[in-house]
Amino acid sequence: MSSTLARVGILMGSDSDLPTMSRAAAVLEEFGVPYEIRVMSAHRTPELVRRYVESAEERGLRVLICGAGRAAHLAGVAAAHTTLPVLGVPIEGGPLNGVDALYSTVQMPPGIPVATFSIGTHGAQNAALFAVALLALSDPQLAEALKAYRRRMAESVQQKDAQLQEKGWRNYP
Amino acid sequence: MSSTLARVGILMGSDSDLPTMSRAAAVLEEFGVPYEIRVMSAHRTPELVRRYVESAEERGLRVLICGAGRAAHLAGVAAAHTTLPVLGVPIEGGPLNGVDALYSTVQMPPGIPVATFSIGTHGAQNAALFAVALLALSDPQLAEALKAYRRRMAESVQQKDAQLQEKGWRNYP
Amino acid sequence: MSSTLARVGILMGSDSDLPTMSRAAAVLEEFGVPYEIRVMSAHRTPELVRRYVESAEERGLRVLICGAGRAAHLAGVAAAHTTLPVLGVPIEGGPLNGVDALYSTVQMPPGIPVATFSIGTHGAQNAALFAVALLALSDPQLAEALKAYRRRMAESVQQKDAQLQEKGWRNYP
Amino acid sequence: MSSTLARVGILMGSDSDLPTMSRAAAVLEEFGVPYEIRVMSAHRTPELVRRYVESAEERGLRVLICGAGRAAHLAGVAAAHTTLPVLGVPIEGGPLNGVDALYSTVQMPPGIPVATFSIGTHGAQNAALFAVALLALSDPQLAEALKAYRRRMAESVQQKDAQLQEKGWRNYP
Amino acid sequence: MSSTLARVGILMGSDSDLPTMSRAAAVLEEFGVPYEIRVMSAHRTPELVRRYVESAEERGLRVLICGAGRAAHLAGVAAAHTTLPVLGVPIEGGPLNGVDALYSTVQMPPGIPVATFSIGTHGAQNAALFAVALLALSDPQLAEALKAYRRRMAESVQQKDAQLQEKGWRNYP
Amino acid sequence: MSSTLARVGILMGSDSDLPTMSRAAAVLEEFGVPYEIRVMSAHRTPELVRRYVESAEERGLRVLICGAGRAAHLAGVAAAHTTLPVLGVPIEGGPLNGVDALYSTVQMPPGIPVATFSIGTHGAQNAALFAVALLALSDPQLAEALKAYRRRMAESVQQKDAQLQEKGWRNYP
Amino acid sequence: MSSTLARVGILMGSDSDLPTMSRAAAVLEEFGVPYEIRVMSAHRTPELVRRYVESAEERGLRVLICGAGRAAHLAGVAAAHTTLPVLGVPIEGGPLNGVDALYSTVQMPPGIPVATFSIGTHGAQNAALFAVALLALSDPQLAEALKAYRRRMAESVQQKDAQLQEKGWRNYP
Amino acid sequence: MSSTLARVGILMGSDSDLPTMSRAAAVLEEFGVPYEIRVMSAHRTPELVRRYVESAEERGLRVLICGAGRAAHLAGVAAAHTTLPVLGVPIEGGPLNGVDALYSTVQMPPGIPVATFSIGTHGAQNAALFAVALLALSDPQLAEALKAYRRRMAESVQQKDAQLQEKGWRNYP
Repeated sequence: MSSTLARVGILMGSDSDLPTMSRAAAVLEEFGVPYEIRVMSAHRTPELVRRYVESAEERGLRVLICGAGRAAHLAGVAAAHTTLPVLGVPIEGGPLNGVDALYSTVQMPPGIPVATFSIGTHGAQNAALFAVALLALSDPQLAEALKAYRRRMAESVQQKDAQLQEKGWRNYP
Repeated sequence: MSSTLARVGILMGSDSDLPTMSRAAAVLEEFGVPYEIRVMSAHRTPELVRRYVESAEERGLRVLICGAGRAAHLAGVAAAHTTLPVLGVPIEGGPLNGVDALYSTVQMPPGIPVATFSIGTHGAQNAALFAVALLALSDPQLAEALKAYRRRMAESVQQKDAQLQEKGWRNYP
Repeated sequence: MSSTLARVGILMGSDSDLPTMSRAAAVLEEFGVPYEIRVMSAHRTPELVRRYVESAEERGLRVLICGAGRAAHLAGVAAAHTTLPVLGVPIEGGPLNGVDALYSTVQMPPGIPVATFSIGTHGAQNAALFAVALLALSDPQLAEALKAYRRRMAESVQQKDAQLQEKGWRNYP
Repeated sequence: MSSTLARVGILMGSDSDLPTMSRAAAVLEEFGVPYEIRVMSAHRTPELVRRYVESAEERGLRVLICGAGRAAHLAGVAAAHTTLPVLGVPIEGGPLNGVDALYSTVQMPPGIPVATFSIGTHGAQNAALFAVALLALSDPQLAEALKAYRRRMAESVQQKDAQLQEKGWRNYP
Repeated sequence: MSSTLARVGILMGSDSDLPTMSRAAAVLEEFGVPYEIRVMSAHRTPELVRRYVESAEERGLRVLICGAGRAAHLAGVAAAHTTLPVLGVPIEGGPLNGVDALYSTVQMPPGIPVATFSIGTHGAQNAALFAVALLALSDPQLAEALKAYRRRMAESVQQKDAQLQEKGWRNYP
Repeated sequence: MSSTLARVGILMGSDSDLPTMSRAAAVLEEFGVPYEIRVMSAHRTPELVRRYVESAEERGLRVLICGAGRAAHLAGVAAAHTTLPVLGVPIEGGPLNGVDALYSTVQMPPGIPVATFSIGTHGAQNAALFAVALLALSDPQLAEALKAYRRRMAESVQQKDAQLQEKGWRNYP
Repeated sequence: MSSTLARVGILMGSDSDLPTMSRAAAVLEEFGVPYEIRVMSAHRTPELVRRYVESAEERGLRVLICGAGRAAHLAGVAAAHTTLPVLGVPIEGGPLNGVDALYSTVQMPPGIPVATFSIGTHGAQNAALFAVALLALSDPQLAEALKAYRRRMAESVQQKDAQLQEKGWRNYP
Repeated sequence: MSSTLARVGILMGSDSDLPTMSRAAAVLEEFGVPYEIRVMSAHRTPELVRRYVESAEERGLRVLICGAGRAAHLAGVAAAHTTLPVLGVPIEGGPLNGVDALYSTVQMPPGIPVATFSIGTHGAQNAALFAVALLALSDPQLAEALKAYRRRMAESVQQKDAQLQEKGWRNYP
């Protein structure tokens, strides 16, 4: 997790987003992808975000994963400061339960894309898997690990199905 | 409209927002409030926005009006760089017709407020009237002009009602 | 909190809104801004609201913060009776969870602006900070206090980030 | 249509609502129910609304029909000033197309009911029919007229069906 | 509560709606208005609904209050079978939390009005108050009771406000 | 199209729904499935609907397709009166553009299913294809016709793709 | 429940959907309709889904019931691989609470219908009842069982009503 | 545009999506990135999609851009058949105007990510720019071209602003 080697930067606007964004970190660790995980706010610490993002490429980062809730500007602000791929995770919660964060993240104007994933923990996990897929384009070992991950997922579904067939739904699991 | 004297800065993310945001300019002119009107994008020209907003207070601006559509980050980004009051106008249009811009503008995190107004031209007009109300707090002449504006609005409603009573709804207007 | 000196009036439609609106009061106290906090309903006590709002300016109030839920008419009704700046806080809750209150507060017709903030407690806190920003326009000490508040917020984010870096996400906080 | 005899008061917040609200007037005329139709705004002419509504009962009005769009407060404000039945018509239009007006009209707090009808012209027509139904409770002739109206509607549906059967859908109408 | 004298019929589609609809019953009892409260479903017992509604007028009922959730057809089906005023209460709950019931109840086609009230218990209470207002049109004693109810509501708000002023928000209630 | 032989009944609440529902008729004709197409309203002609639906099974109908807009009760009311499969088509249009009709049609209570299809013409076409699929369960010739229809659709997609490859997107079609 | 005899296939994308989809199984058991219940994912095990669905018809299945949440593609993917009737159940849950699953299931393009039912357990129950209705078209005994089920439902509503009349709402149940 | 060299595959579910998806093609051409553009439907030609996607990696494709409307399953189905990065573009249009396509595309379950972009043409353009950013991670020339594209965008905004300052808003453009 040493930041000198990090290929992926995980940013979140508040430490209250950590339960969601740590899912991204866990996936990256599972694949052995070095990453940084940082709390910085597009609104409360805009200069920190700018400096972090502007220097990301030369520090060796290849992709940024940004999670934020409500008026979720973090991913868009990051994308404004770099041409690296920026992945956005709308955080679940608040009175609109993340639909505000989804719209604020995905509806970017032409020219500055943010690749957006599911609202909440599913999105954090998927953004990390997508980051792995990006890095795998030039890393055959990682590509193979990703394919193996898919196979394990498929096997897990099949095992659950087998268990359901064996026990019947009344006794499952 | 000389920018050296401007008290209000009107910002928009794209010149396609001008038909909406010019309504704010027209209101300010009606009240004789000097203003600037600028096109700058939180995503495409983030440094311009930052420098403009950071210098706004010392250049004599007292309030900023920011209009943007879809993932409307402009007002939030401006608010991150100043403690001046920031007014946000969600621009109408696009597939979600401004509900995305409304959520992106109003749902700001605690600590960095954006005062948000109606979606579209109504919002631009009201943001400008609100800016006048702010300035009127320390400008009795402006305060009186605002009260007169209200009276004229009320009279206009009454005249329409009188005309409706006179002509009947089948012949109105 | 003596009402003779109050610069800000906080209104709410029901005492059930107090857990939200007291956040606005707490912010004003933190900045030493004198305020009033009142329960009055646009629907159940319309005359009280009218008299309160119509006399607000001459009693020395400079800005009103109005919180209401569902068909949230309080801010709009207040704005109809004064040219002082009116700030609206859509209260969270009910079956639509505040999206009704947001629309009822923000979508004001042209001529009668209501500056609207986030749904729920975030909005109450931000409306109060915005009120401080308004008053700070003619109060350099308050302006400085607001800037200091922003710096403290930024430092708090940075401390959390530092703690996250030190402990790692598995052990945070 | 002489207002001295009016039993129903039709109010709208703006003359731009007349194409919708005139549908209510047309229905009342069809049933021979005397009515008034007035333009007055809860936000721009709150005192007019208050005086009109407060005096409605003693002037002989039995029911009020209020149409307004966006942050549609007119019906709620009227209901706050009278115990007469108040019917609300959310006006279609604007960026949210009337869903804002619907929520602002229907989501009234406990104690002050507004009977709400469909968004747009359908709602204006139905509010008027509902007003007729109210008055018919103590007017047997009107009750019979309402039943006849229903029968005519049913016959019209049946005639269209007969025509469709006769011509086939390719040649209809 | 003897049904031979009932002036108001309260219908609900399922006994699971009783916690909501009993609020309507409680209001009617408070005003001494005789009523019936019945469980019958537009979908599961359509013939019961039809017979109940068709005979309502001649049995002396003057108004129907219908509560239903999700695809809430009960009020509309009732309205199709009578020219008595029909009041609809969208029941809160389910995955869409009542917005489905609101749309199903309020968006009636032209010709068959349903007067719709707030989603959930607020709506049940308000529908009953509206029924009282209807009956009060020809019952001066009831009209006076309704005005007294309003005054008590206003006093209750004022007492809460007084208590808040006395104790301060930190110690309320 | 003789109704004595009809296997499918197409119902619509208003002749204004014919441009949508005729798409269902066209599909059934294409497959040679005899059908009836009728205008009858759950709200304006409830008795007609009831008698039609209650007699449907013994007259040989096997499935009903019901199209209605806004508070779309027709499919639900039909389903209440028969155990035949009822297919619902939410009609597009009105201020909520069919989302009201979708919720009113699909969110049926447990016990009385309505099989719901896409909003608008796509839904009418798909409901008819689904009716064909139902009938095909006991009609091998129809089953084969349905498979052939699918193949033609696939070929059409492939031809369009081939044309796009040949001409390039700048010259397509 | 032996799969060799199954007439209905119940599919779900994840075993977390079992509490919902087991409601469909319970209904089928109540009617004595043999069925299979399987966990397989359109995204994680697409080949399993394809092979299962493509072979469904020849293995004797007559109808498929597919439940999935969020971006609920399972029913649509199944429908792409068979001309058997496919019934879709949008699973409740997640940040959008099933409205995403509803749209993903019901808004199918022309040519590939998915019959969609209520969000959540109501939908699972209704999809199974609809499957019974389909099978009942060629099974008079099943048709009679379905009519009896309806009668029992009606009686249950009537018993609850009778109990409510007897006890009064204050003592119910 | 020779498909033997293609690095990006653009897929759309229907040729009616071409006006949107051709925007992605235009961007790729501007950057000199070879691509394929194909019409194939997840629902009407599922086998074509499967074979295309499964063979994509070995044919040299590095990223897929999938556009689909309404129940937009194409991107999700593609993602199920490859570990290459899949970018999703929700097509604007239909009664829900693309919000259905957004939810169907973005709300993918954990394990199978789809990187989602804005609804409509903005999304097509941004997905292509994001594809360029991915390829630029291992292509310094492309990385420089992307940075130049950003600079030109910024200059274009500045030129529009300069023109606005010169002409004033009344004469713009």
